[in-house]
Amino acid sequence: MHKVIYDTDPGVDDAMALLFLHRHPEIDLIGITTVFGNASVETTTRNALFLKREWNIPAPVAKGASVTVDPTREERAWPTFVHGENGLGNIEVPETVDLPLDPRPAHRFIIDTVRANPGEVRLVAVGRMTNLAMALKEDPEIAGLVKDVVIMGGNFYVPGNVSPVAEANIHGDPEAADIVLTAPWKVAVIGLDVTAITTMSRSYLSEIAAKGDRAVKLLNDLSQDYIDFYKHAVKDGMMVHDSCACVYVVAPELFSIISGPVRVVCGGIADGQTIVKPDGRRFPPGDWDGLPSQVVCTGIESGKVIGLIRDTLLRT
Amino acid sequence: MHKVIYDTDPGVDDAMALLFLHRHPEIDLIGITTVFGNASVETTTRNALFLKREWNIPAPVAKGASVTVDPTREERAWPTFVHGENGLGNIEVPETVDLPLDPRPAHRFIIDTVRANPGEVRLVAVGRMTNLAMALKEDPEIAGLVKDVVIMGGNFYVPGNVSPVAEANIHGDPEAADIVLTAPWKVAVIGLDVTAITTMSRSYLSEIAAKGDRAVKLLNDLSQDYIDFYKHAVKDGMMVHDSCACVYVVAPELFSIISGPVRVVCGGIADGQTIVKPDGRRFPPGDWDGLPSQVVCTGIESGKVIGLIRDTLLRT
Repeated sequence: MHKVIYDTDPGVDDAMALLFLHRHPEIDLIGITTVFGNASVETTTRNALFLKREWNIPAPVAKGASVTVDPTREERAWPTFVHGENGLGNIEVPETVDLPLDPRPAHRFIIDTVRANPGEVRLVAVGRMTNLAMALKEDPEIAGLVKDVVIMGGNFYVPGNVSPVAEANIHGDPEAADIVLTAPWKVAVIGLDVTAITTMSRSYLSEIAAKGDRAVKLLNDLSQDYIDFYKHAVKDGMMVHDSCACVYVVAPELFSIISGPVRVVCGGIADGQTIVKPDGRRFPPGDWDGLPSQVVCTGIESGKVIGLIRDTLLRT
Repeated sequence: MHKVIYDTDPGVDDAMALLFLHRHPEIDLIGITTVFGNASVETTTRNALFLKREWNIPAPVAKGASVTVDPTREERAWPTFVHGENGLGNIEVPETVDLPLDPRPAHRFIIDTVRANPGEVRLVAVGRMTNLAMALKEDPEIAGLVKDVVIMGGNFYVPGNVSPVAEANIHGDPEAADIVLTAPWKVAVIGLDVTAITTMSRSYLSEIAAKGDRAVKLLNDLSQDYIDFYKHAVKDGMMVHDSCACVYVVAPELFSIISGPVRVVCGGIADGQTIVKPDGRRFPPGDWDGLPSQVVCTGIESGKVIGLIRDTLLRT
């Protein structure tokens, strides 16, 4: 069983990924930590609690960061045109959800849980990397104590989605991402190179909903506006970004990879860009030297990934 | 006939491209301007004069820049491991060549020649963009008077060659390249996306030399060390970077392109990276807004390009 802490900012594609983690038989979801990004952290935390309640997810929820690691960064407007005003595609969500939060902040929850399960925890982070960076800053030793880190974020040999070279999760807190990607732990990076070509059509999702239970029907409902948003890029469907990272946890063989140290551009016109120095390529001495080699996904068997998501969502 | 000014830093692949321009029947090579890069400007100018003499090229040679547009940039060592100590693969080259230089600096030669041939000149720049940037700074109106600009430089959806994201010509003077790429003229960018996959094998070149005249034999001789250098990346052959830009001048149909404004990162870990915002892609307001759309080559029919180079080199 893979012990997973899911660091997330639900978020529509975050919701699908959460249900995938909850339902996959080889995954033991031991914690949900929230972060700002697709909406404020108050909203993403409320949404995590809402989905936990609706889907009977036992994992505790710990509320995380609302400010970038470099607090002087200017906050931008939430991407309500993507995830809706409420972060869940404008379906009806109660103002508050009457479930207890873990008393600890997310980064402390991560530290404690990693220390309680040395060598076992897989951190799956699909929002800004702020909580993970804060955990590393407070307790650098956890880098040697997690099993690995799988993130949805970045882009390497394809365009970005919030600038020509930057992806939203990384661009939302570049300094945090640079800390996470250069720390001495194993990170697998699931970025737009693979997630932007892994799409689920509206009809495919509605067929899953028709076959599935109440949980899947809720997922289908909250995904409709998100699918509308994607009409500029996808033919009546959506990119399932965050679920790709969760699929990697259980089925890495569906991805092709390169390896190498990864840095994040902080500032300037390329702000938030992820850059890999592929292992084995020769360059003059530079900013990637001496850093740990990470796994960067550059290819994906999209059809199989979508099929695995479907099969997993339909388990009860 | 295409009236071409060739801005160059010979340089081994520069030499092949020069012979291509000289021998192509639809190209009227009306000037050669030199720039620092593959070697000092003294060396690249001497080399241009040497090749002019050896190959009986009538075009005048004007000596260009030896310092980046931002003079505070630190100079790095010349890439002697690529182009040899003398910039021409360590073949025997006289210390000096007894041919007159045009009296004007390169950027002034460019301005005067463009003004004398309004709407006709195609600037083919295959070194650092310093001369072109200086010409634009001294006489911005030339942007409206050239026919177009074709550059070898940059990389978009493939790694760089002097850093994980930067190509040597652009990295050698990023501020100059940003000036050139954002000016209100038409630029076609022939970067590593296409040049790194366009290679000529040692045996293919030696067969051309066997069939060709003295000029081609000299080209073959000066290319041998360069082919040795490329052994880390090419199977007994070389990338013909600069010739690709010259082929574009006469056969753009051999390239597939995207269009969009292009910026160059100046400073930081992505220093010298070229970034295109593809036309039609949606991003929040940013650094590419309101800039002219340029042509970025992302695909190439390498076999046909190599064949056209061969056929052209064999014309006399």
